Amino acid sequence: VNLFWALDRMDGALASASASDGRALLERLLYEARSIDEEDRAMCRAIGRHGAGLVRPGQGILTHCNAGGLATAEYGTALAVAFAAHELGTPLRVFADETRPLLQGARLTAWELQRRGIPVTLICDNMAAQVMKEGKIQLVVVGADRIASNGDTANKIGTYGVALLAKAHSIPFYVAAPSSTFDLSIADGSAIPIEQRDPREITHGFGRQTAPDGIDVYNPAFDVTPAELIAGIITEKGIIQPVNRGTIKQVFGMK
Amino acid sequence: VNLFWALDRMDGALASASASDGRALLERLLYEARSIDEEDRAMCRAIGRHGAGLVRPGQGILTHCNAGGLATAEYGTALAVAFAAHELGTPLRVFADETRPLLQGARLTAWELQRRGIPVTLICDNMAAQVMKEGKIQLVVVGADRIASNGDTANKIGTYGVALLAKAHSIPFYVAAPSSTFDLSIADGSAIPIEQRDPREITHGFGRQTAPDGIDVYNPAFDVTPAELIAGIITEKGIIQPVNRGTIKQVFGMK
Repeated sequence: VNLFWALDRMDGALASASASDGRALLERLLYEARSIDEEDRAMCRAIGRHGAGLVRPGQGILTHCNAGGLATAEYGTALAVAFAAHELGTPLRVFADETRPLLQGARLTAWELQRRGIPVTLICDNMAAQVMKEGKIQLVVVGADRIASNGDTANKIGTYGVALLAKAHSIPFYVAAPSSTFDLSIADGSAIPIEQRDPREITHGFGRQTAPDGIDVYNPAFDVTPAELIAGIITEKGIIQPVNRGTIKQVFGMK
Repeated sequence: VNLFWALDRMDGALASASASDGRALLERLLYEARSIDEEDRAMCRAIGRHGAGLVRPGQGILTHCNAGGLATAEYGTALAVAFAAHELGTPLRVFADETRPLLQGARLTAWELQRRGIPVTLICDNMAAQVMKEGKIQLVVVGADRIASNGDTANKIGTYGVALLAKAHSIPFYVAAPSSTFDLSIADGSAIPIEQRDPREITHGFGRQTAPDGIDVYNPAFDVTPAELIAGIITEKGIIQPVNRGTIKQVFGMK
């Protein structure tokens, strides 16, 4: 959602430009893009600042997919919480789900954390329950693609399962996302259509065929985690907690 | 456990052989191996027969890893349930978790089912929760590596998570395994040490590096599903249900 929000804003900048020559228009767009980048950095830092308060020394934080600086500007959303806590000197370890089929957790999240010197352990998605059972996880923080007005949250496939596993182990499950991720026009998660992706992502994911020819594949891009499984939503404005229609309306100043 | 049981039996056959020349000893071992194979086929068929009664027409069955004919003789254990129900003419569909890191579900389970003409859909492990939420699964059946005397079951990593997700969606979770899988010498799952495997299975799984150099990896080979999450254990002797120390003792004729 917030990618389209940014594109709309660039569109608006272009429409409102008084200049007519190409170079001036380009300058205007560049100015707008840089503003978005700066605001995004500030926003991610604010999310990190709010979220860092949730992390106690020595805790393990599980995350799924990638919601770091590669997906936003510099600091990320879910990873901002770990980045900020780390900068404050809080010792912690992040467990990164590899996140099949495209392995954003292995390829991006693990890399970003390693690069910043934050202890990170890579696991396969199906190991999350065991890692929780062993007491290695005290907090789950994930990003969001889109959040409905009641708090139901669409995010990378597997997020909903992680939320259920967290609940089973009494581990708080948080979503970290800028307020531009809220889609207040939709009542709840049931209004979010779930895109199906290319079966070859699963059967031919890494330059090698790993399933029989002609096999039927189900490859939903994301899932929806119901608001009642979410302990709080960490935004740049603060943490929305508990997550429900009322608390969300309040944050957005709606009646 | 039952692999070592079979090796012990071969050892016993060798020890009890009266022959002294190599050829006769070889014949004796071959005879024993063929007996094990025949008994294994009969046992898998019996598991299938008992388990098939659990399947209603049109149901979806989720399985994890591979417990089919490639892991046993001909018919398998968890897959025997689907094979037997299919032979009885019960329409069904199996959802096969691909089972990271080694993809036994994608490479073996999907292939075995496809080969027998049973509808099968391949999913990534992290999609199981979503598929359950969509009402596509009415039954979960998995195999077992080792079962403690109270019913706690060690099986491929990810099985415990599937059991928790099944519980959250009120879907019955069954284990299918021959009685030789029970290790009555251990009180419960806490006595089962969990082997850690090579990190490269996760970081270099597909002939291609998919995680940063030097990344820390946690790669447990299996997990333990507590007995209370298991609706029943389908053995060649019948279905143990409910799963507890008492019902297991009864099956094995112990006081």
